[in-house]
Amino acid sequence: MEGMMKVAIMTDIQKMDFEERPIPQPKDDEVLVKLDYVGICGSDLHYYETGAIGDYVVKPPFVLGHEPGGVVVEVGREVKHLQVGDRVALEPGKTCGQCEFCKEGKYNLCPDVVFFATPPVDGVFQEYVAHEANLCFKLPDNVSTLEGALIEPLAVGFHAAIQGDAHLGQKAVVMGAGCIGLVSMMALKARGVSEVYVVDVMDKRLEKAMELGATGVINGMKEDVVERVKELTGGRGTDLVIETAGAEVTSRQAILMARKGSTIVFVGYSKTGEVTLPMSIALDKELTFKTVFRYRHIYPMAIQAVADGKIDLKGIVTDEFPLTEADKAMEFSMKNKADIVKAVIKIHE
Amino acid sequence: MEGMMKVAIMTDIQKMDFEERPIPQPKDDEVLVKLDYVGICGSDLHYYETGAIGDYVVKPPFVLGHEPGGVVVEVGREVKHLQVGDRVALEPGKTCGQCEFCKEGKYNLCPDVVFFATPPVDGVFQEYVAHEANLCFKLPDNVSTLEGALIEPLAVGFHAAIQGDAHLGQKAVVMGAGCIGLVSMMALKARGVSEVYVVDVMDKRLEKAMELGATGVINGMKEDVVERVKELTGGRGTDLVIETAGAEVTSRQAILMARKGSTIVFVGYSKTGEVTLPMSIALDKELTFKTVFRYRHIYPMAIQAVADGKIDLKGIVTDEFPLTEADKAMEFSMKNKADIVKAVIKIHE
Amino acid sequence: MEGMMKVAIMTDIQKMDFEERPIPQPKDDEVLVKLDYVGICGSDLHYYETGAIGDYVVKPPFVLGHEPGGVVVEVGREVKHLQVGDRVALEPGKTCGQCEFCKEGKYNLCPDVVFFATPPVDGVFQEYVAHEANLCFKLPDNVSTLEGALIEPLAVGFHAAIQGDAHLGQKAVVMGAGCIGLVSMMALKARGVSEVYVVDVMDKRLEKAMELGATGVINGMKEDVVERVKELTGGRGTDLVIETAGAEVTSRQAILMARKGSTIVFVGYSKTGEVTLPMSIALDKELTFKTVFRYRHIYPMAIQAVADGKIDLKGIVTDEFPLTEADKAMEFSMKNKADIVKAVIKIHE
Amino acid sequence: MEGMMKVAIMTDIQKMDFEERPIPQPKDDEVLVKLDYVGICGSDLHYYETGAIGDYVVKPPFVLGHEPGGVVVEVGREVKHLQVGDRVALEPGKTCGQCEFCKEGKYNLCPDVVFFATPPVDGVFQEYVAHEANLCFKLPDNVSTLEGALIEPLAVGFHAAIQGDAHLGQKAVVMGAGCIGLVSMMALKARGVSEVYVVDVMDKRLEKAMELGATGVINGMKEDVVERVKELTGGRGTDLVIETAGAEVTSRQAILMARKGSTIVFVGYSKTGEVTLPMSIALDKELTFKTVFRYRHIYPMAIQAVADGKIDLKGIVTDEFPLTEADKAMEFSMKNKADIVKAVIKIHE
Repeated sequence: MEGMMKVAIMTDIQKMDFEERPIPQPKDDEVLVKLDYVGICGSDLHYYETGAIGDYVVKPPFVLGHEPGGVVVEVGREVKHLQVGDRVALEPGKTCGQCEFCKEGKYNLCPDVVFFATPPVDGVFQEYVAHEANLCFKLPDNVSTLEGALIEPLAVGFHAAIQGDAHLGQKAVVMGAGCIGLVSMMALKARGVSEVYVVDVMDKRLEKAMELGATGVINGMKEDVVERVKELTGGRGTDLVIETAGAEVTSRQAILMARKGSTIVFVGYSKTGEVTLPMSIALDKELTFKTVFRYRHIYPMAIQAVADGKIDLKGIVTDEFPLTEADKAMEFSMKNKADIVKAVIKIHE
Repeated sequence: MEGMMKVAIMTDIQKMDFEERPIPQPKDDEVLVKLDYVGICGSDLHYYETGAIGDYVVKPPFVLGHEPGGVVVEVGREVKHLQVGDRVALEPGKTCGQCEFCKEGKYNLCPDVVFFATPPVDGVFQEYVAHEANLCFKLPDNVSTLEGALIEPLAVGFHAAIQGDAHLGQKAVVMGAGCIGLVSMMALKARGVSEVYVVDVMDKRLEKAMELGATGVINGMKEDVVERVKELTGGRGTDLVIETAGAEVTSRQAILMARKGSTIVFVGYSKTGEVTLPMSIALDKELTFKTVFRYRHIYPMAIQAVADGKIDLKGIVTDEFPLTEADKAMEFSMKNKADIVKAVIKIHE
Repeated sequence: MEGMMKVAIMTDIQKMDFEERPIPQPKDDEVLVKLDYVGICGSDLHYYETGAIGDYVVKPPFVLGHEPGGVVVEVGREVKHLQVGDRVALEPGKTCGQCEFCKEGKYNLCPDVVFFATPPVDGVFQEYVAHEANLCFKLPDNVSTLEGALIEPLAVGFHAAIQGDAHLGQKAVVMGAGCIGLVSMMALKARGVSEVYVVDVMDKRLEKAMELGATGVINGMKEDVVERVKELTGGRGTDLVIETAGAEVTSRQAILMARKGSTIVFVGYSKTGEVTLPMSIALDKELTFKTVFRYRHIYPMAIQAVADGKIDLKGIVTDEFPLTEADKAMEFSMKNKADIVKAVIKIHE
Repeated sequence: MEGMMKVAIMTDIQKMDFEERPIPQPKDDEVLVKLDYVGICGSDLHYYETGAIGDYVVKPPFVLGHEPGGVVVEVGREVKHLQVGDRVALEPGKTCGQCEFCKEGKYNLCPDVVFFATPPVDGVFQEYVAHEANLCFKLPDNVSTLEGALIEPLAVGFHAAIQGDAHLGQKAVVMGAGCIGLVSMMALKARGVSEVYVVDVMDKRLEKAMELGATGVINGMKEDVVERVKELTGGRGTDLVIETAGAEVTSRQAILMARKGSTIVFVGYSKTGEVTLPMSIALDKELTFKTVFRYRHIYPMAIQAVADGKIDLKGIVTDEFPLTEADKAMEFSMKNKADIVKAVIKIHE
């Protein structure tokens, strides 16, 4: 497909602009996707607000956005499993397939990954993208491209659930009711965990958690979280904690509420990441800590779970902006972090 | 067996005395063991020095010692697998067999455990003990009762190795060259790990590590530990770290030296246990933290490993005292912690 | 509680009678349970029909029945977690807690187990039973004692699901739509497996499977089972097969339909158990075979799953008889095996 | 490198010849290896003798041989980790890196694998080969290219050991003392298994097993294998059986000698692969069957184990032929299967 497309670009810290770029040409093993929706992730906001995450520093002009869903409009010559018109979710990271991590099946740890919107690799706040066909997963009829875009954050929740071996019969707590907390809660439920309690300090988020299927919620500003969890678990403590709040206080609570021999999954630390933990309690309880870096092997399963109605993915979307207002979208999102669960850029319909 | 026996008792903080007590009578499922050797553990020293470990507070008179080896001299009526004259290692914790932890096979987490020298349960710095026969493991001819006594600390090392799934092909580091560090290093080697490097700040301990089979050692006072480990592993980092030093600095080094996707096993924190860790690095590397509380299912395998010559258990003993000098043993051990790897009380020969 | 109770006894092969026996007295760690329902298991029928299963030979008079649910009417002195009036499901096997299998958490393999209705241990086709309180699991308000009785067969289904690591995202097949096939199917669904197909040769059973939640069914008399499964899985084959039919033909089909690298769980062989398998195909696919002997650690989780509405346990009951007609129940069940999914003896209401 | 090289080709069933072919040119990601040794595998013999293995049918001219070791003589432009002069072991299968099996880390199950000497892909009974650099593993100074060639069969033994989770403390039996049985035995020992007994029907092979480190051996023609194993394990049975004999009788013995809850690894069935097994005994014991198809992730670890002296790989070589006598090598090997453990073709020195 020849022609130009609109691209939203980050031109400086907290500055966005737009430009026209040529529509990319898919290689033989790629497809060209006309994007319908791209979610705005906390990392997009962090790059926008500060210009960097750890060692990854934005060099403008830079394109944000790594949660895309869209429709295949052109198919590379070697591609067999996709056709023009297929609606797809795009897994944003291309990995080498040859390093020891890829060979062992932990491709999310591939040092040579090329990942949308991770400097210096551009993201996809734009109309079209050419992407490896193997990373484009066809959506069933009852899954929309909006949901397709949101498979990406859901994948983090599922990876957390799998790292924690979440299963039927457990009593679990999710610390934090932001986007990742909510998708983690839904992932636990979908894997059969009967009781999933969500902890946050904002009632609005906790209401959303209840709407989306949490067994119960705890407001950490109003209740003693650890005591409340002990009550809810008959004094036993949790079988599994998913810590998504990324705060020291919630990490410490996780250790205190955990049943002996159980597991805590740590999903995110947005700031310095230096955390003081009561390690001797963790040792006395013989806890296991698992951690999450992105995800692996999740897309087909997550799409199926949405198609089966086990996950209410649309329910996490609180705000929507057209591509032409990507600048407002970023500014608004930065200023209203507490109120937004998930904002998305609508590109085509 | 009727009669009295000598018992070394802790009468106050940093005070020991002796008294005569009746030789205990074994129950139907117990054996009476004439003790040959009892090791002095760091926890014995801690109780002696401070009177407590966490919530466990000594109420004198209290008997220390939980690392016993000896000879069966009387056998309960229901006991089938042991005979008078059998030399045995005694696993010091009796568990309930009925709680959910016991049922699941994690008996080391049994809340109703009765464990030698953990207040209010007396230990075994004494001549005889009656103990559940199932917890007395017969020693082969080529394993001495001194080695039998030391199966207990070795069990901690093996549990750490198993928690970390130590196996052939890994490159591992053990932080700390005290007793637990050394038995962990030997446990890793016995499980097939080819390269095990030991880190400490005292050359004397590091020499001992080399004597006992370490692949190499690093003095943290003289070298940049993380850099040195990276060199030794061709830049890859470690597949497994066993952290036995219980210090913040070594815990942080463990995270920095670990290869992506790998495991760190935390074995001990003797003091407050509050540790500040760079958790965002742990998450970026998707590390797993495992922890160790005592051990489970280790004795028969550990005894076999010693019998097979895979573990030089005698090699860790640096000091020996008769029972009649238990007071001196404790005082000396407290004052010379840095120089002692393992002191033992010789009770009979 | 003093007095006599009615007991249905097997007096010879295919002969039942009744007698009065004293109501048992609970020991200190036991409760006395007034039984409401006891399910009739295939093994009860097999003992009734032939007098033996393998090395287990009935010596009359013998009491059959090991799937009991009832109400606590008396509580031993040491029992803390149960009260008179509690409705309970009874796990039928008392294990030693001390052997290596018990210690490792695989108590179902305990060689000293005392299991209801496994010769020479009597079962519970009777009005009352005194049973270890730890093996009596309290039912929530919304779980009936009929369902309580059926937790036992459900436990086999859950153990099969767990042995096969059943989880969200898999496509599974259950071979056989008898009682164990149906509870296995429901266990897979409860653990999150989205697609579970059931194979049998009788339409009536397959209809029951659909009623209880199967994704689809295949009649092995009318369709090529392996071809049909390949179609249903888009050519990939199954991620998990639970083989409950206990036949050579279904075992072979399981191997042929399995995806490379996947797992087959074998649950039962009622007859000689000699089966000819295409092992070179299993090796080419690098399949794993897991097997099931009874179950372990299932009751609390299974009760919760029923309480949560994830399992329709009442739905498997096809026939009900009063205790006074236990003789007819056995005769009818033996003669109508093909039509019965699950018959139960109603003892009290 | 320009020029011609000698190649041994299979021209028909049981017929070999030689021809000159151009020395291949390495691609950018390949290296050119001058081969020193290539082992003769049972599958080479099977193709030579019968022209096919299952669906894989030889179309002459065909080159056999997939166990190569040699020296790098030319390096593709993108290759970084190898240099001219490096001695290497070559892993013979190139996999796609993109299919679900590759992505999950089970690359040995890749349906698009290109594997030396598996029709229609030629093998390496020839002087040079161009091979993907990622599949060429540098040998340390103390590992010869002969040993490098033998890493391939050793990899099967290690994969079997890993599939069976072989570890310190187990008592294991290897059924069969052919090449794969012997490397399996050595792999178990290297992973720390203390007692490994080997069963075969030929004393000569059993002597070789003892030479290479078996704890003991059993001649199945002279002793009751199952009884003898029970004696050797104190009545407990085996913790692990590696079945490499590929016979029904040994497979049945494996089930009979296995301890409850333990694992049997099936490594090979050379003929029809139809085996009649006592599955009800396997179920009563709740055994796990694992299987082996080639191997994955083994080369670096196996090379290290040889370098560390944990594996005596030279010890399995019984016969050596120059490339110019490849025809004699095949004929001799076919006719003396029982006497040969491992024959190799020496190509350069």
